[in-house]
Amino acid sequence: MPHTSAGPQIEQLITMLSRLPGLGPRSARRAVLHLIRKKEGLLIPLGRAMNEAAEHIRSCDTCGNIDVKNPCAICQAPGRDQTSLCVVEQVGDLWALERAGAHRGRYFVLGGVLSAIDGVRPEDLFIDRLLTLAETPQITEVILALSANVDGASTSHFLADSLAKTGVKVTTIARGVPVGGELDYLDDGTLAAALVSRKAI
Amino acid sequence: MPHTSAGPQIEQLITMLSRLPGLGPRSARRAVLHLIRKKEGLLIPLGRAMNEAAEHIRSCDTCGNIDVKNPCAICQAPGRDQTSLCVVEQVGDLWALERAGAHRGRYFVLGGVLSAIDGVRPEDLFIDRLLTLAETPQITEVILALSANVDGASTSHFLADSLAKTGVKVTTIARGVPVGGELDYLDDGTLAAALVSRKAI
Repeated sequence: MPHTSAGPQIEQLITMLSRLPGLGPRSARRAVLHLIRKKEGLLIPLGRAMNEAAEHIRSCDTCGNIDVKNPCAICQAPGRDQTSLCVVEQVGDLWALERAGAHRGRYFVLGGVLSAIDGVRPEDLFIDRLLTLAETPQITEVILALSANVDGASTSHFLADSLAKTGVKVTTIARGVPVGGELDYLDDGTLAAALVSRKAI
Repeated sequence: MPHTSAGPQIEQLITMLSRLPGLGPRSARRAVLHLIRKKEGLLIPLGRAMNEAAEHIRSCDTCGNIDVKNPCAICQAPGRDQTSLCVVEQVGDLWALERAGAHRGRYFVLGGVLSAIDGVRPEDLFIDRLLTLAETPQITEVILALSANVDGASTSHFLADSLAKTGVKVTTIARGVPVGGELDYLDDGTLAAALVSRKAI
């Protein structure tokens, strides 16, 4: 059933926008009406920005990050700590750590986590590429920053085992109470992990 | 602060997407990562669809609807009832009525409602154009389908007064219990309106 009476161009635009995460048919229709109202200021520049992104964005062959350069700006940055490599699942996680300014070394995007239920096996991730990179002499520590769930934890253990033979130090980010978190609202698993990992003040 | 480490093209794309209704910075970042993952299937076609929409979409000079034709497909459709004109606030309302298959006549997009608070005066809406259109001999009924709130109601009264001199019949869509609505969950105003407008079964 068509969304509108405005012809196939608009129908197609709504259908494609509704495939973005966070947008359904209703919000895609609202977005398209907004875009048409702001034709000069938003619709035309957005179409142009999408064409440019499609043309210039590459996946970094070294770390899996996305950038207009290959190797990416982070892999090329001379000022970054070349001894420490932070392993994340997805590019979005890398962006989050960069926004936090939390990591001054390099990254490696694994492409997901192992999952028996979803059928993700070691050969589906970039584990071989990670092992090769970890063998680079300057890298002394691999920090695993994967999701704090069962699949993330089992992937971390699998990677720690695989990395053991390279001789690098393997660490994982801490589990605990989030900054600003109130104990009363936290789940039992987080509270238990925070207690186990308690430290002297 | 940048959203990503992926360079200005991606930053710009996120900033523009986050200006769409229903998307904030976080969902715009997720949308951009999704678009980059689906470059061939979504990013490139979406950019192309936006360019095409920007090039071809016009506002109908007769009714204010948007379409690739001017006059729009609805104004040109010979099969539609030419005697009845349905007045809506926005193009999105016209789309909603068309999806419902609720109106077989023509439409007129007013461009909003009168509002003392938002400073919308009669000259800010397409009231003159509506009065001219309503004077066309074949139009015998103007149906007001504006929002069921104070501004919508006062605009309906203003339009009914203005249209009185053209001699057309002016009606407004019914207020009442929505289909599937449970009385217990409805507001007092809707319940009162539904009682006042009761009819024999």
